Amino acid sequence: MDLTVMDLPAYRALAVHRVRAGRPLQGQDSVAEEVPVALEFNGVSHAVMMATPADLEDFAYGFALTEGIVDATAQIHDCEYASGPQGYTVQLSIAASCFARLKEMRRNLTGRTGCGLCGTESLAHAVRVLAPLKMRPSFTAAAVTLAAASLREYQCLLAATGATHAAAWCTADGHIELIREDVGRHNALDKLVGALLRSSLDARSGFVLITSRASYEMVQKTATAGIALLAAVSGVTGLAVDVAQSAGLTLLGFTRGTDFSIYSHPEQLSLDSQ
Amino acid sequence: MDLTVMDLPAYRALAVHRVRAGRPLQGQDSVAEEVPVALEFNGVSHAVMMATPADLEDFAYGFALTEGIVDATAQIHDCEYASGPQGYTVQLSIAASCFARLKEMRRNLTGRTGCGLCGTESLAHAVRVLAPLKMRPSFTAAAVTLAAASLREYQCLLAATGATHAAAWCTADGHIELIREDVGRHNALDKLVGALLRSSLDARSGFVLITSRASYEMVQKTATAGIALLAAVSGVTGLAVDVAQSAGLTLLGFTRGTDFSIYSHPEQLSLDSQ
Repeated sequence: MDLTVMDLPAYRALAVHRVRAGRPLQGQDSVAEEVPVALEFNGVSHAVMMATPADLEDFAYGFALTEGIVDATAQIHDCEYASGPQGYTVQLSIAASCFARLKEMRRNLTGRTGCGLCGTESLAHAVRVLAPLKMRPSFTAAAVTLAAASLREYQCLLAATGATHAAAWCTADGHIELIREDVGRHNALDKLVGALLRSSLDARSGFVLITSRASYEMVQKTATAGIALLAAVSGVTGLAVDVAQSAGLTLLGFTRGTDFSIYSHPEQLSLDSQ
Repeated sequence: MDLTVMDLPAYRALAVHRVRAGRPLQGQDSVAEEVPVALEFNGVSHAVMMATPADLEDFAYGFALTEGIVDATAQIHDCEYASGPQGYTVQLSIAASCFARLKEMRRNLTGRTGCGLCGTESLAHAVRVLAPLKMRPSFTAAAVTLAAASLREYQCLLAATGATHAAAWCTADGHIELIREDVGRHNALDKLVGALLRSSLDARSGFVLITSRASYEMVQKTATAGIALLAAVSGVTGLAVDVAQSAGLTLLGFTRGTDFSIYSHPEQLSLDSQ
């Protein structure tokens, strides 16, 4: 393929007028970039997402898995990306069986769809039913607290811009092993899942910590990656609790300092070692 | 139409296990609801969004305007909604000319699309070019500061759940006149725009204050509603700045206390009266 990769930086410096207690100050800011990223599967354009131009291969891998386009990394044969004047294009080559299924999915949709639910046009298909998680390791409150305490120091893009979300994968003993950042919280999680897929780590052995709220889609993406605990720094939604409950996922909200709230499957979290 | 309206509450009470400094406590929490909302135009299903089930008529009106389906309230002839076991359906009757244009838009799309960009399948259509705002009243720093100081007391759903975004419309002297809340920040803004459309207020005479970051879409929705100033409590993205610059919109970020940063058109904001 004739693709030139010209990486955009994830943020840019910008002159800014600051107002402090009513008084103007000239200054410089770093703002996170947000660019259109087109995802193509086997040469067919599938979706355009607004995302921060960093870790786009991770993003494509994660999106393919969490949106149910592929079921495993081995079904992704190749991934290339290129930037043009209008944004990025990421081209994935996927297994013929996955592509056939994707075409079938597309055939069943009659036109413009999507809007946050990735191609859903009717209520009947809005909320995907997840199979219950097979592996449900027990995690400890101490590990969650340890990971939460160190999260901020890993958020490089946040340090620069003050305006990005992060998703981190933490080992069972609470060490942050992988982190991905993006202007969008779903993108940050998709990037993290993609990075896990492309690594030699066993995603199921650890848990996920996100800087945002936990909506239904965040739980769904975590469970699809086979991970049994999701801790959110902010709150959770009612549907997120329902989905976590039926998938067998432990959902934590308001994870701050040594405090958090457990919204589902508290039996899978041990408080002993605190 | 044979529609039964059974309003779901915007949040629900839930038993929760809290952990405070490692010690478990039993408690009760309120979590915001997040339900699928299907939008139909003239009987044709258009999109399904995850939203908080409150102010759904405002949501539908705002979505129709900010997504370019209608250009004015007069083109919306009727709005009804109903809830079923799978979520809500909002049915809008729009002017024949708007529906013809919508069908044309849909015809140009070949299948599954969307994902945060509402039906966009190729990079060329990703970022809508906005006409520059015609009316650009000058606002004051004092008004922005006044509105920001009182924002929290208007956020009823946040007070209950701790996990929802808000978008507020403020008069030129900084009084919050309308506010809408949702688990999604785009939804909160669409609801606010819809509420403005359905009110007798002149949207262009005031400004918008949002509790979230300002991404490209937040600027685009604000400008489409004819409003010339958007103040975000959190940061802004690079593309948001670009779009604000070309639309003639004053974009503020990190609006906290008496401080904020001005990212575009500072000449439209007066600091004098502070």
